[in-house]
This record gives sequence, C-alpha cells and structure tokens, in this order.
Amino acid sequence: MGKPLERAEIAAPRGFKQRLYAELEPAARHKPGLSVTNRIICILIIASALFAVMETEHEFVGNHVGAFLAIEMAITAVFSIEYVLRAWVSSENPAFGPGLKGLVRYLMSPAAILDLIALAPIVFALAGSQAFLLRAFRLLRILRVARLGRFSRATRYMRMAVAARREELVLSLGVTILLIFASSTLLYLVEGRLQPQQFGSIPRAMWWSVSTLTTVGYGDVYPITALGRVLAGLTAIAGIGLIAMPAGILAAAFSEAAHREHEQLEEERRGEWRPE
Amino acid sequence: MGKPLERAEIAAPRGFKQRLYAELEPAARHKPGLSVTNRIICILIIASALFAVMETEHEFVGNHVGAFLAIEMAITAVFSIEYVLRAWVSSENPAFGPGLKGLVRYLMSPAAILDLIALAPIVFALAGSQAFLLRAFRLLRILRVARLGRFSRATRYMRMAVAARREELVLSLGVTILLIFASSTLLYLVEGRLQPQQFGSIPRAMWWSVSTLTTVGYGDVYPITALGRVLAGLTAIAGIGLIAMPAGILAAAFSEAAHREHEQLEEERRGEWRPE
Amino acid sequence: MGKPLERAEIAAPRGFKQRLYAELEPAARHKPGLSVTNRIICILIIASALFAVMETEHEFVGNHVGAFLAIEMAITAVFSIEYVLRAWVSSENPAFGPGLKGLVRYLMSPAAILDLIALAPIVFALAGSQAFLLRAFRLLRILRVARLGRFSRATRYMRMAVAARREELVLSLGVTILLIFASSTLLYLVEGRLQPQQFGSIPRAMWWSVSTLTTVGYGDVYPITALGRVLAGLTAIAGIGLIAMPAGILAAAFSEAAHREHEQLEEERRGEWRPE
Amino acid sequence: MGKPLERAEIAAPRGFKQRLYAELEPAARHKPGLSVTNRIICILIIASALFAVMETEHEFVGNHVGAFLAIEMAITAVFSIEYVLRAWVSSENPAFGPGLKGLVRYLMSPAAILDLIALAPIVFALAGSQAFLLRAFRLLRILRVARLGRFSRATRYMRMAVAARREELVLSLGVTILLIFASSTLLYLVEGRLQPQQFGSIPRAMWWSVSTLTTVGYGDVYPITALGRVLAGLTAIAGIGLIAMPAGILAAAFSEAAHREHEQLEEERRGEWRPE
Repeated sequence: MGKPLERAEIAAPRGFKQRLYAELEPAARHKPGLSVTNRIICILIIASALFAVMETEHEFVGNHVGAFLAIEMAITAVFSIEYVLRAWVSSENPAFGPGLKGLVRYLMSPAAILDLIALAPIVFALAGSQAFLLRAFRLLRILRVARLGRFSRATRYMRMAVAARREELVLSLGVTILLIFASSTLLYLVEGRLQPQQFGSIPRAMWWSVSTLTTVGYGDVYPITALGRVLAGLTAIAGIGLIAMPAGILAAAFSEAAHREHEQLEEERRGEWRPE
Repeated sequence: MGKPLERAEIAAPRGFKQRLYAELEPAARHKPGLSVTNRIICILIIASALFAVMETEHEFVGNHVGAFLAIEMAITAVFSIEYVLRAWVSSENPAFGPGLKGLVRYLMSPAAILDLIALAPIVFALAGSQAFLLRAFRLLRILRVARLGRFSRATRYMRMAVAARREELVLSLGVTILLIFASSTLLYLVEGRLQPQQFGSIPRAMWWSVSTLTTVGYGDVYPITALGRVLAGLTAIAGIGLIAMPAGILAAAFSEAAHREHEQLEEERRGEWRPE
Repeated sequence: MGKPLERAEIAAPRGFKQRLYAELEPAARHKPGLSVTNRIICILIIASALFAVMETEHEFVGNHVGAFLAIEMAITAVFSIEYVLRAWVSSENPAFGPGLKGLVRYLMSPAAILDLIALAPIVFALAGSQAFLLRAFRLLRILRVARLGRFSRATRYMRMAVAARREELVLSLGVTILLIFASSTLLYLVEGRLQPQQFGSIPRAMWWSVSTLTTVGYGDVYPITALGRVLAGLTAIAGIGLIAMPAGILAAAFSEAAHREHEQLEEERRGEWRPE
Repeated sequence: MGKPLERAEIAAPRGFKQRLYAELEPAARHKPGLSVTNRIICILIIASALFAVMETEHEFVGNHVGAFLAIEMAITAVFSIEYVLRAWVSSENPAFGPGLKGLVRYLMSPAAILDLIALAPIVFALAGSQAFLLRAFRLLRILRVARLGRFSRATRYMRMAVAARREELVLSLGVTILLIFASSTLLYLVEGRLQPQQFGSIPRAMWWSVSTLTTVGYGDVYPITALGRVLAGLTAIAGIGLIAMPAGILAAAFSEAAHREHEQLEEERRGEWRPE
C-alpha cells in the first residue's frame, strides 16, 4: 500500500493529501460505495477479529503460536500506518478544521479513539504474559469490527431512526424489566419451596424469567406445578408482546425516517437544503 | 430532602407550593425531562425493588438481616414524605381542584393508590413474621417500579397506540388461544397414550402447546411419533405467525400515532388545538 | 332464553323478527358492542371449550362423568335453538335475501357451517362409545371457539389485511419450506452418520430444522460437529429473517388497511359509499 | 402432455409456438394466475423434492428401491421435455430475441441454468453408485423447488422491497455478528475455566451465543455462574432487538413498495408509464 502512494506524493505533493482524504473518508468520496483502501481495511478488521477468536481454540492454534503473534504484529502495523494517515488528512475535513486544534479535535472524536484502542492489544501481547490480561484484551480486538460502522451509510440512517424513538424503546425495555421482576416473583412464590435450587430466590427465578420472556427457553429451569405452568404460559405469551413491541416501534421509526429522507431529497433538488 | 424545603417554605409560603408542584408533577414542569426530585425518587424506586429482590437470596443477605430492614424503613420514610407532599400540592393540579373534594379525588386516582400500596410492605415486615405473608408482599414492593410509568411521556403515546388497535390485539390473542386449544387437542389425540405424563390430557398437552407456539421450547416435553412431530412442526410455524401478527398490528398503530401526533402539532401551531 | 322471546312474538309478530335479527347479528345492531344474547353465547362457547378440555383430565373429572355429559347436552340444546333462530332471521339479512333460496345461501355460508359443526359432537357422545370416536370429536368441540370470530368486528378487518397480502405471505411460507428442505439436507449430509437416530434421513433432520428455523429449539436434537454447528447457526440466523418477513408484510398490510378504512369513512361521510 | 401439443402444431404451426410461449411463460399470459401446464410442473417440482427427501428414510423406501429410481427417471423425462420446449419458445421472448444469439442468451439466464441443474441428479443416480455422491446430489434436487420462484408475481415485489433496504439489512446482520463476537468473548472469559468443553474457547462459546441471540436456546449449553447468567440475560434481551430490527426494516420496505406500486398504477392509468 505504501509504495504507490509515495510515488503519487512526488508527482502531486499538495493534491495527494486531498486525494488520500477522499480515499480514506467515505463521506468525501464522489462515487458511491467504499474506496479500495477502505475495502482492504474492512477485510483486515474482520480478519484480525477472526484471528483473535481462533487464537483461543487450541485445536486451531496447535504449534503455530509464533505465526499468530506475527499476524497480530503485521495487522497492528497496517492499522498504525492507517491511524497516522487518517490523523494527517483530518485537516481536510471541515468538521475538524486545520492546525493543531483541528488535529486534537479529530483525535478526541469517538472514531479516532476507537481506532487507537484497536492498536492497544499488541502492547499486552508483547509486554506482559499474564493469562488474564491476555484473555481480557481480546474483547478490545473484537471491538475493531465496530469500526466497520464508520464506513456504512446505513449506520447514520439507522442511528437516526433509533434515536427518534429512543423514549419508546427505553419504555419497552422498562416494561421488559418490570415483567422480569413480576414473573420471577410469582414463580419464586409458587415454585420456590419445590425447586429451591432453581426458584429458591427471586434472583434465581430471574434466570428462568429472562430465558422465558425472551423466548430463548434453554430448558434447564422450568416450573413443575400446575399453577407454575399457567404463570409460565402467561409469561411466555407476554414475551411475544415484548418482541412485537420494539419491532412495531422500529417499523414506524424506519417508515418515518424513509419518509423524511424522501422529503429532504425533494428539498435538496429545489436547492433549499444543504448538508450539515 | 426535608430541611431545604422547610427553609424555602419560610421564605415564600405561597410560591413554595407552586414550585413544589412543578418539581413533583412532570406535566407541570416547563423544561423537558424529569426534575431532580423525581430523578431521586426514580432511583429510590428501582433501589427498593432491587433490595426486595436481593433480600430473598440468602447468599446476599447472610447476617445483614437488620441492615435490610433498616433500608426498607428508610425508603418507606422517604416515600411517606413524598406521598404527603404530593397530596398537599394536588390542589394546584386543575385535574383535581382545591379543597377536601379535590384531595379525595386525588387520593382516589390510580397513581395515588399505587403510591399508597407501595407503602404497605413495611406494615407486614414490622407486624407479622409469617413466612408466607413476608414472601407475598414482595410482589407489592416490585410494583413500585410500575410508578415509573407516571414519569414517562412515552407511556401516554404507547398507551394511545395500543388502545387504537385494542380490538386487533385482543383478536390475535384470541387466535393464539384457539391455536393452543387446537394443537394441544391434536397432540393429546396422537401422543396421549405414548406419553401419558406429558400428553395424557388436553390441559397437560397445553403446557407443550404454549411452549411451542411462543417459540420458547423448553424441551422438557416434545412429541416422539412421526405424526406428532409433523403436527408440532406446523404448530411451531403457526407460532411464527403469532409473533408476526401483533408486531404488524403495533407497527401500523405506531405509524398511525406518529402521523396523528404530527398533524396535532401542525394544528397546535395554527392555534386550533389545545391540550386536554 | 326461549320464554321472553315467545311472549314478544305474540305482541309484535312482524317486528319481533327484525328485533331478533338486530339482537343476533352484530352488523345489524345500531349501538356499538355486542348484544346481551351474543355476550351470553360467547361465554357459553368459551365455557363449552373449557369443559371439553377439562373432561380429558381425570383429576378434574373424577366421579362427575354424568355431570360433564349433562353440561354437554345443555350447551348443545342452547346452540341448537340459536342455530334455528339464526337461520330463521337470515331472511332479514340483505346479503342472503328472503325465501328458500336465501335460507340455503345462509346455511351454506362458512359461519353457518361452523355453527352446525359445533352441534355435531353430541351425536358422537350419545351414539357410539368407541374410544377413538370419543377422542376425535373433542377437536370439534374445541373448535367451537372459532365461532367467536363471527362476533368480532376486527376479524373482518384482519381477514381483509391478510387477504390483501396473501401472495407475499404464501411466498414467505414457501421460503420457509425451502429453507427447511435445504438445512435438513445439509445437516443430514454432515451429521447423518454420527447421529443416525436424529439426522439419519432428511425427514428425521427436518424435525431439527423446523425446531431451529422457528427458533423453538427444544434441545432434543442438535448438531455435535463443528461444521454442523456452523450450518445450524446460519439456519438459526435465517430463522430470524423468517420471523421478520411475515411481521414486515403484515405491518404494511395493516398500515394499508387502516389507510383504506380512513378513506372509506371519508367517502361514507360524503355519501358516496354504501356497505356491501 | 406431448401428444395433444403435437396435434396442435399440425393445425397451426406458427400460432402454436406463440400459444405454447403464453402457456409456459407466466409474464406472457393475459389472464392472472398460472397456466395448467405450469401448475402441473409446480406439482411435479414439489413431488420430486418430496421423493428425494423420502428416499433417504429407509422406513419409507423399504424394498421399493426400483420404484424410487423409476419415479426419478419419469420426472427427469418430463423436466427434459419442458427444458427443450422452454428453450424453443424463448425466441418469442423480447428479452432474449430470436436466432442462435437469443437462444444462447436464454440458456445462460439464471432460470435456464437452474432448470438444467435440476436435470443433473439422474446422471449421478444412473452412473455412479458412490454413497457420498448419491447423497450430495440430493441438495441439487431440492433446489428444484427454488424454480417455483419463477412463477410468483410476489417474488419480484419482495425482491424489490428487500433490495431497497439491502444496506440496512446487511448492517443489522453486521450488528448480529458483532453481538455474537462480543457475547461469546465475554462468556468465554467468565465461564471458560468452569465449562472448558462448552466455553473453553471463543469459537466454542459462539455456538451458545448464536443459539441465545437467535432465541433458539437448545439448552445443551448455558452459563452456570451468576455473572455468566447476567451476561446471558443481557444477550437474550439483545436478541429481541435483533429480531425486531429486520422486522422493522422490512415493514418499512414493504410499506414503501406498496406505496410506490400504488403510484405506478395511478400513472399507468393516466398512460404515462409502460412496463419494462
């Protein structure tokens, strides 16, 4: 990746930064879709997450411990170069502006911080060899995948739809929590004495309650009395409502967002609207 | 909480009641969101529910029985003060009006009765020590969380949407019940003799039927014959429809409610509409 | 029920038929909601279904076999009178018209046939005592609940919405069947030799496939190899789509039906529309 | 099927091709619905898939191995004739055009290739008798059912709706994958040491994660520690969102597609629109 870019830099030292910015920042690209560079980075993010996952399974690793560390170092190197380049071209982005102030503003943005965190795992892998830290930092590496959100236009659209109905979604989460409390209390009262290990306290009964209301139903815990089963049946039916409610809320939100986008495009066509 | 309020009362005896009313009643507040007092009360409601839940698990309680009773008493004290203050400022609310008549109307409102019920558990905890009563009143304490509904603007909106499609939702519940009846009868006929404990009667088969139609699927009961499995498969596929139906109904209801709210806001802007 | 009706008949022989028609037919009633007679019939339908269900559980029946038969006969008698009266007043319904031709048209309508089927169980209960017949007719008795659909305004509305999107719903059922075929074939190829009892043939694997795609997941059958689990995971994720698809279709159908009803009401107000 | 067609060919050699084209191609038919020939083909496709499925179960096959091979040969013969006829009449289709060039374009179309693949199984059944190949080609036979998609008007409609929201659906699949990664990493960290067989590596924990997030919940793997259960509960609740999200997206997409189709029909009525 490095070589052709350097050559381009010699040919057009000023224009290169702008072209690199258009190459790295999806919003600055004239054509739809992702640039070649961003596609490669996406594949690397997914690959690094898959390697982090595979590394935990000794059947995959076997005697190739060294190979896994080498891959980790190579991926981190590419991500480091990418991090520096993104910081450099951030001055082209009107949202951050030029100069040191703009750079600091960019480095403090959530996307840039996530990029930095994605570089952290290598430090733990090289420095310490404490088993727990080695295991815990893997979560950070997995989060690299979250960076993919940066490249998707749909992310902005969906976040808008969810944000517009945030109150309703929080309320339906509240109803879920209330139902978990109520159903686990009832089952604790009915089955608590018969199955003390499973329903002997409300926190224990909650495990059953969550598994039933979300319609997961592992089957490790279930009521055995007639009354307990009637209550469990009502809980399961309530669970259907709990799935239907956010589905309905999101359906309305997406319909509305699509409608609003349509109107914005209309206004844009008439020259009355400009992007933020 | 008590002390600063008393001081304020001395400074502005008439204005204090109005300010307290605006502090306690979310609808009377000029700014959006909840006041500091209501936020504290929300946190206390959730905390008291969590304590009631934890109290049932001896691993949490251990030797701290006294501490749990003290917490219960402290929370009840705060809720008692809140109850009295809400009753006092209810005269400011045009929905209830001033005087003893307005007070009685407020105390008979569902929200006030729920507040009173939320104070009841302490009586059982102090007076009797019968194991069953002690366990049963916990359900009441959990209901305190339901009071959170009072503070949310989204509650009114969702209740409106559900009420507008009540008939359809009741009908889809009716279809659910019909399918539970039909599928449990069929499985009783097919598997009743082979698995008398699980399918030996229609009420027994209903436990399987609910677990399948709601897609919970505990796995404690399932058909073992070929015909029984075909019928169970059809039941499970019907279960998908049962989840899809209320989701579709609610989606249409939320879309409509959003549309209506939009139109109401338009009319309000033109000065043609006033809130109830 | 019979006596006051007979008295009324003497007082107003012509007007009585019309009043009875308004009492029995929800669509002909001027006031919203169900008439007293229809409410009693609704309760009897539900009661008869509950009795049919309870009768199969010997813990409920005990020595009361005679009582259960008596209840069945009483309910059938009421439903028989209702059937005759509905047939008699059908001439008032413009959809069927007067005379023998109108009567035959009414008796051939789905609602009337369902009413007749609801009377059938008593024949089996009285005539034969063959174990199989006795067991089979129970389904008919349970199906009586389906008659409730006649009384609900929402039924017509929902049937309209489902009918408008019938093609899409059938197609999503087709996709479900295709996925059941494909996933059970794959799991049969991968796990067939290891678990011959569970995956030894495609029909056997289908039991797992239906349970997974509908997200029921009993847990009596599941893959044990790595490849089988990857395929099962993909099947389960496809199952989410299978739930989401009919939900989305129905949501659009209900939105549309609500929109159309709104427009119809508008036209009706202008006097341009008349009910079928 | 062959004989009456031949007779018709003699009577009207030029018109026969056009009539056959209208009989075979649903889009060229003037009346709505499928022609008699296409209905028979649909039934044969489903029958052949069912035979392929049943053939794997020795309880169905028994001593009728020869009968199953004969059925396979007969169905393949009918599909071969159909393949040739479709290729012959493809010259009537303006999308492919006349001559050898049009024929090649038709034979390269996805529908024609699928038709050809549907003929392949017989080669394996007659030529080799290797157990694995015999088993593997069954997947191809199942794919014959996919050809039904060709006949449905709803397919085009649904593909349009899904395509319009492809980005959002891919994103919600991405969120699903991210949640699978995150939850399996957390459970691996928490339960990995206690249940090495189930949670000993992230790929192992993923089996649990998929089963929970899709709300399947087989119950062969579940957390046993308190922290593990809290995380599993949060995963299950997130799973509700994962089902609700595509449901909401598709609901909006179907609403929009219905709206667009309505507008198109309006324009068509005014003579401003013509089909592609």
